[in-house]
Amino acid sequence: MSKQNSLAVCITCRRAGTDPQASRDGARLSEALAARGVPHDRQECFSACDRSCVVVFLGAGRWTYVQGGLDPDRHLDDLVDMAGAYAATADGLVPWRARPEVIRKNTIARIPPIEV
Amino acid sequence: MSKQNSLAVCITCRRAGTDPQASRDGARLSEALAARGVPHDRQECFSACDRSCVVVFLGAGRWTYVQGGLDPDRHLDDLVDMAGAYAATADGLVPWRARPEVIRKNTIARIPPIEV
Repeated sequence: MSKQNSLAVCITCRRAGTDPQASRDGARLSEALAARGVPHDRQECFSACDRSCVVVFLGAGRWTYVQGGLDPDRHLDDLVDMAGAYAATADGLVPWRARPEVIRKNTIARIPPIEV
Repeated sequence: MSKQNSLAVCITCRRAGTDPQASRDGARLSEALAARGVPHDRQECFSACDRSCVVVFLGAGRWTYVQGGLDPDRHLDDLVDMAGAYAATADGLVPWRARPEVIRKNTIARIPPIEV
C-alpha cells in the first residue's frame, strides 16, 4: 500500500447474489470513491471474499481495520465519512459512536500498529 | 505490536461451544507457544471473535495474515510450523503448499505491506 493513502479498496469483490456478468462491486466502489475525491489504493483481493465488499483502513503507526459488508449503492456516504474520520486520526482509532453503523457492524478484524 | 515479533496471539479468544468457566483457549494457545519457545505478542481481541482462536502474522514490509479456526489442542504443531515459515520470509508470503491445511482453510484476511 502506498504510504500516503489510508484506505485500500478491493476491486475484485463481488457481493453475494449479484450478477456475475455485471461490473464488479469493488471496482464500482473504487470508481465512486474516486469521483468523490477520496484517495485510496486499489487492491486485488484481501482474502475476505465472503464478506464483500471489503476495504482496509491502514497506515504507519495506526490500527488497521478490515471492513466488509459494503454495498457501493447504499454505503458510499458512510464510507466517505469513515475515510475522513480515520484519516484525521493519528492512531487509527475512530471513536465507536463516530463510526457509521455499517462500519460498526462489519468489522472483520482490527490489528494493532507495529512499533517502529 | 513489538517490532521484533512476527506473530500476535489473541489471549481472550474462546472457541465456540467451549466451557465459559474454563481457561480461555487463546491464553492456553499463547502459553503452549511460549512453552515451545515461539516468540509472540499477546493481544486482547482482534475483533474476529466468531472465528476463534485468532492469531495475526505481521511485520514491517510484510503481508499481514489474520488467521482463525485454531484449536490449541489440535493445531499447535501447525502453528509452530507456520510461525517459523512466516518468520523466515522477507515479505510475509509463505508458498501455498508450505502452509498447513488449517492455515490455508482459515485465512480471515490478508493485507499488503505499507510502503516505507
